Amino acid sequence: MSQLKKLNDRIVSRVNANLSEFDFDTESFVTNSLEHDKMLKFYAFYGITSQHPLYFHFRNSNIAGSYFLGKCYVGRSAIYKSDIRGDELKRRGDEIRGAMNIPLVEDEMITIKDSLLYKTLVHSNSHNLESPEEFGIRNTISAHYANIHGSTLEGCFLGPFATVDLMNLHSCIVGNFSYVQAGELFHRKIDHGTVWIRSQNFEFKYRFRKEILDNFVGVNSLYQPRGIIYDFVKDREQEFEKLFDVMNLEPIEAPSTSAVNRYAVVRGKTRIGENVLVSQKAFLENAVIGDGSNAQENTYIIDSTLAGNCITAHGGKIIHAEIGRESFVGFNSFLNGKADARIEIGEGCIVMPHTIIDPKIPIKIPSDHLIWGFIGSKDDIKNHTIALDDLAEVREVLKIGKMTFSGLGSVFIEGFKKRLDQILLLNGAFFNDGENRGHAQDDQNISFNLIQPYRTGERKGLYPSIRIKP
Amino acid sequence: MSQLKKLNDRIVSRVNANLSEFDFDTESFVTNSLEHDKMLKFYAFYGITSQHPLYFHFRNSNIAGSYFLGKCYVGRSAIYKSDIRGDELKRRGDEIRGAMNIPLVEDEMITIKDSLLYKTLVHSNSHNLESPEEFGIRNTISAHYANIHGSTLEGCFLGPFATVDLMNLHSCIVGNFSYVQAGELFHRKIDHGTVWIRSQNFEFKYRFRKEILDNFVGVNSLYQPRGIIYDFVKDREQEFEKLFDVMNLEPIEAPSTSAVNRYAVVRGKTRIGENVLVSQKAFLENAVIGDGSNAQENTYIIDSTLAGNCITAHGGKIIHAEIGRESFVGFNSFLNGKADARIEIGEGCIVMPHTIIDPKIPIKIPSDHLIWGFIGSKDDIKNHTIALDDLAEVREVLKIGKMTFSGLGSVFIEGFKKRLDQILLLNGAFFNDGENRGHAQDDQNISFNLIQPYRTGERKGLYPSIRIKP
Repeated sequence: MSQLKKLNDRIVSRVNANLSEFDFDTESFVTNSLEHDKMLKFYAFYGITSQHPLYFHFRNSNIAGSYFLGKCYVGRSAIYKSDIRGDELKRRGDEIRGAMNIPLVEDEMITIKDSLLYKTLVHSNSHNLESPEEFGIRNTISAHYANIHGSTLEGCFLGPFATVDLMNLHSCIVGNFSYVQAGELFHRKIDHGTVWIRSQNFEFKYRFRKEILDNFVGVNSLYQPRGIIYDFVKDREQEFEKLFDVMNLEPIEAPSTSAVNRYAVVRGKTRIGENVLVSQKAFLENAVIGDGSNAQENTYIIDSTLAGNCITAHGGKIIHAEIGRESFVGFNSFLNGKADARIEIGEGCIVMPHTIIDPKIPIKIPSDHLIWGFIGSKDDIKNHTIALDDLAEVREVLKIGKMTFSGLGSVFIEGFKKRLDQILLLNGAFFNDGENRGHAQDDQNISFNLIQPYRTGERKGLYPSIRIKP
Repeated sequence: MSQLKKLNDRIVSRVNANLSEFDFDTESFVTNSLEHDKMLKFYAFYGITSQHPLYFHFRNSNIAGSYFLGKCYVGRSAIYKSDIRGDELKRRGDEIRGAMNIPLVEDEMITIKDSLLYKTLVHSNSHNLESPEEFGIRNTISAHYANIHGSTLEGCFLGPFATVDLMNLHSCIVGNFSYVQAGELFHRKIDHGTVWIRSQNFEFKYRFRKEILDNFVGVNSLYQPRGIIYDFVKDREQEFEKLFDVMNLEPIEAPSTSAVNRYAVVRGKTRIGENVLVSQKAFLENAVIGDGSNAQENTYIIDSTLAGNCITAHGGKIIHAEIGRESFVGFNSFLNGKADARIEIGEGCIVMPHTIIDPKIPIKIPSDHLIWGFIGSKDDIKNHTIALDDLAEVREVLKIGKMTFSGLGSVFIEGFKKRLDQILLLNGAFFNDGENRGHAQDDQNISFNLIQPYRTGERKGLYPSIRIKP
């Protein structure tokens, strides 16, 4: 096991060196997270299709249980049960805004070096102007169910269920269940439970009360995640392991315009509409997925309905809920309705990333509202929602409860809606008559390739060096 | 499907060019063998361990259902459900006899180019002096259940169940069920059912009568194999497909000194002794595999006992039989005993490659005999066996029935016995107290890696280019 041990130690020492000013030692987290037995137990896999550019290169790494799509290099890293999805990487010749419209000299590629990603979702939507050809993650540790949705990351630690979106982080710590979309950040520590969006024209900031967050996402004395949300996903983990055990599964019934990944769990009375994408590691149970909707990686949709053109971003959980047309449920949100306390979200709503709704009686949010933070009762609705029309009027500062918005509300809403449209387009929601193909159409015929580590000897636990090209 | 079609056509044209003098067109065989649906259906897989040198490189090929171990390059080829086993390749620094003891400058590697191998077993035991670093197969087609056990092969066609052993062939045709071990052969056509061994000091030659061979191995009007032996393996094919469908199988009970490959079928009351190797695609049913015995690829051992230190060479089939200690059953032999017509082979016997025993009443061959050709009744024994002691006396020519032996019998037997000892050693039969490790010990912890082709688009049916190193 010695090479694997060396790998761990190298990652710890490099990340610690970057975070030394915070007096932050990642060793306990790494030691308690990386069980070497598990790093041998699960195969890694990558998808190939005729629709996605193909390049994989794995070296001196353990990538147990992880899934790869697109172009990706992994070197001297541990990528455990993560999902590295490079199907939206930019291509050679593409131009990116702000970079003087100089086209990319080669296809963009995800590169992960000297890093540890644990059940992390890496998805490609980088706006890094300095190196548009590289979606780079280096000397970085990300804990359970983190989302990395944009690079560069250098020398960072992301806590469990943290999300970094469209941004670059250098020597930063992102707290548990924090969502950050704030451009370039250097040497910053983001408190637990922060939801922060910052751009030229506006800023949105919210922070969960510690005593509430602790119930849902925290860490125990061994630096492992705990809390209601972690228990929720842990309880369903075995369902996914079953999918790993069988090579050929009966395909899930779905229209020919939709894709249901074979590594998704689909149970109970579930109905899939047209132009629907159900990604790997999505979990559907008694779910109605309306036309053009999607259930992205690590989402759970249980006893719920998505009306149509709904987006469930990576890690979103929707239980006993109705989601109206063209509504969005952000990263890692936890809409925890119950049979006798259902959640109803109107049409055109934006449920901000990392929102928790955990009611004891039925909750109803009208159409065209923004929803954020924590809603545990009817009383909380007032302080955690606003009509989009009202927000559009804001020109300076708006404070509601623990949320502060400053800048132009109309620009915030317009930008958000534009991004949602883009997401629907990329996911194939608008596919019609051969036009507007997206993931729902392109991800139907994925060939899965399975790779495994050395089981004995000096390299035990490491994967051989492997390189795949078209 | 166009790239796959081009691949087929390129192989046909190159092999035909080499065989033009024989007026032999391989197109019918290729067209009727390569069903494109099947070329998409089965995954390919390769094994990695800490005990075997590792290098795989696959390019512009379809390798459906094939298994790879060791060092191997496959380019512009179709390798269907074949077994490319490079675990006995020579290593850098090794010396080979006859080459002035100049050591190899790099590890030997199997290279397969512009070729079609169909359910073929390629195993590494090459004595090619010109290019000891390359076990090369080029512009060659081999049909169902052929064995290639030595290179170079250039521009050849091997019929179904043919075996070429320790040799080099250039622009040759080897007939159905023929076994050849004759050094270098140029522009030769080997008749169906020939068993031919030639060396400096002796020559063994036998040819099956056409009317007998036709019952067991032939081809139909579509150039596909037919006959009793083909039906026998075809009837059991589904058992192997089941193994492909499950990722984690319960391991077969076996001593810690033995290896039972997870792609072997093991059924009924089967008992595995110490230091036993059961290879992938072996089929055991109610079999007793005594200490130090092996069941190599494509062997079938059914309702039978191997006493101990018995060798079942690639493709050997042993049904309702007892095999005595240290006996050898050669390539593709078919010992087709029945419940009321069992076959008993004594100790220290050599069943020549491609021997068929198909009795209606019990058959018993005494210890220390050579057995060859076709035995259908008690009467046949006389013309198809000889005591090794008697053969050892032969100095010039011995004719028995359709068998001709010329040269020194003692050298033939000594060489054979020496090779059998070597096979047992390599397979781990002599493992004791940590000494004399072989395949039975080294093949216990194989990590299997699964790869699949493009399922859509221009490259449909081809595998991506993949390169694997340590």
